[in-house]
Amino acid sequence: MAEHLSQSELDYPFKLLEYFNGFRVSKVIFSACELGVFDLLTTSPCALSAQQVAQSLHASVDGTERLLDALVGIKILHVELQDGTALYSSTDVASVYLAKSGAKSLHDMALYQSQTIYPLWNNLADAVREGKNQNRKTFGIPPEEVFQAIYRSEEEMLKFMGLMDSSWVLDGHDVVTAFCLDGFRNIVDFGGCTGALARELAKAYPSSSVTVFDMPAVVETATQRFLRENDTFTFQSGDFFHGELPAADLYVLARILHDWSEDKCLTLLKRIYDICKPGGGVLLVEAMLLESRRGPIQAQLFSLNMLVQAEGRERPPSEYTGMLRRSGFRDVQLCRTGKSYDAILARR
Amino acid sequence: MAEHLSQSELDYPFKLLEYFNGFRVSKVIFSACELGVFDLLTTSPCALSAQQVAQSLHASVDGTERLLDALVGIKILHVELQDGTALYSSTDVASVYLAKSGAKSLHDMALYQSQTIYPLWNNLADAVREGKNQNRKTFGIPPEEVFQAIYRSEEEMLKFMGLMDSSWVLDGHDVVTAFCLDGFRNIVDFGGCTGALARELAKAYPSSSVTVFDMPAVVETATQRFLRENDTFTFQSGDFFHGELPAADLYVLARILHDWSEDKCLTLLKRIYDICKPGGGVLLVEAMLLESRRGPIQAQLFSLNMLVQAEGRERPPSEYTGMLRRSGFRDVQLCRTGKSYDAILARR
Repeated sequence: MAEHLSQSELDYPFKLLEYFNGFRVSKVIFSACELGVFDLLTTSPCALSAQQVAQSLHASVDGTERLLDALVGIKILHVELQDGTALYSSTDVASVYLAKSGAKSLHDMALYQSQTIYPLWNNLADAVREGKNQNRKTFGIPPEEVFQAIYRSEEEMLKFMGLMDSSWVLDGHDVVTAFCLDGFRNIVDFGGCTGALARELAKAYPSSSVTVFDMPAVVETATQRFLRENDTFTFQSGDFFHGELPAADLYVLARILHDWSEDKCLTLLKRIYDICKPGGGVLLVEAMLLESRRGPIQAQLFSLNMLVQAEGRERPPSEYTGMLRRSGFRDVQLCRTGKSYDAILARR
Repeated sequence: MAEHLSQSELDYPFKLLEYFNGFRVSKVIFSACELGVFDLLTTSPCALSAQQVAQSLHASVDGTERLLDALVGIKILHVELQDGTALYSSTDVASVYLAKSGAKSLHDMALYQSQTIYPLWNNLADAVREGKNQNRKTFGIPPEEVFQAIYRSEEEMLKFMGLMDSSWVLDGHDVVTAFCLDGFRNIVDFGGCTGALARELAKAYPSSSVTVFDMPAVVETATQRFLRENDTFTFQSGDFFHGELPAADLYVLARILHDWSEDKCLTLLKRIYDICKPGGGVLLVEAMLLESRRGPIQAQLFSLNMLVQAEGRERPPSEYTGMLRRSGFRDVQLCRTGKSYDAILARR
């Protein structure tokens, strides 16, 4: 892997200018999701002109045309010129990932990134200066109570749960099959939110019973809004830092430890160790940094995201392994998936 | 050129997730410019730890470390582990383009994009809905008076002029040599701002005389802040829509027409035609769209930028050619540079 941008950048910085334009490309996609461009084009029986799209979406023709052209430029929409009129249609990628009804829809992720994360990142320089999240400067909410901030209204809770839900649509199957978990009869997914990962666990291990353990308000919303008719997993309310923990053979902590300081992570892991039967296990799922500090860029960006929005951080596998060992766990195994999230399995 | 994102995205959307992360990558670079990371590392005689960088920049160690790691991840900084301590150093690309003192510094461009353009683009969906710029919603300034908004304080004027200045550092030489302009003895650069393009004209055509024609306040700031000792071009104050126009053999309109509606463009081109001698010319420099509407993506993003911030748009060559012909010009020639800006030369 090259360690620097190509020397040809010194003649003309094409890649650097692409990085400078990164925020524009993100917002082009996010705004098209917000306006409903992909929902319209995916369900339309024929290609549509900018005027037709604008009329359906109650948007300006001029603005719509520029947005559609930029989506063509990044190859997310398709265009044909017919008698001088540009006719736009969806691509497979847009229909699968960006339409609300897509098979692997990231629509809610796009909305959350656009409306919550993008404004928070406007204050990245201050977050680096202060070493603190920017919830107060961006939204006027106290920086200390991260989940109170995230769940500050029903609308915000739904948006955040939508984000969580859509990320497991992409990575859920890979992380639950990173190790064979067949032997674990009872699996509890701590902080399992909407149940998106529990659904993948239940699918991959149909003879195991799977439970989502989360805060009462989250469980209530999840069962009302996200549970599907044929789901086989169940929900249980509680607080994994303070309340009683459910008995299980395997405890899943997927994107939980990255929310917390090392002290809080150790507290949680020790609580789990204490209730865990010998032979039982814990599965950590996180975007893990390389020990060399050279990547993956997505995990590095997520770690900055934790700084800007929360109080945790992303870590390399050695830190998770260290915390697991200090909590008493043994047989620690790592699986890199090559995608956004990796997995570590350990046993009591 | 493929018209869609690769079908392999349907297995896992690596490219789409890169687009989702685009705003984070932009802000990582911009924030590092704002904090002075590149200035520090470029002038440091040795590689520095995150702690040393944080101390010099009065920033948190934790935040600084995450930012430096992300810059390594996008290959803009270099890292070595020495006895467990990560030591960071600059790359050629960072030193040339991102340090303030770099030979082709884009530092001021980064700051302007970070502090002005990024927040404006938070309202892209509204700009598309309304077909109007978002100056009022973003900064509380009236949307109608675009240049009054851009030049609303001395600080803002300096920032914008810095942006203009740094873009010609990259593209100036290519656009002034897109055509041989040897035959034009007197060249006037309309709206030439800091003189960055005039400098390139004067270098490429040392036997021609070059004049920047711009608003009095701009000329005043340009001569005080941007003029260099060995510059051979001159400044002249005026208003190209209302005042008297200077006599010249060649009129340069570099990123001027994209600011205005077709009506205003025609008004300006006709005013120039009227004063232009037979054989004299006009040189248009713009980021030009493809007639097929399929790119270049940078010009498409610039066109959305004009929507969000101003009142103009980017156009394909056929529209510029049409306006030139309707204003009386002939011998219209196009040169695509393959970089950000293209050129059209026409003669009376």
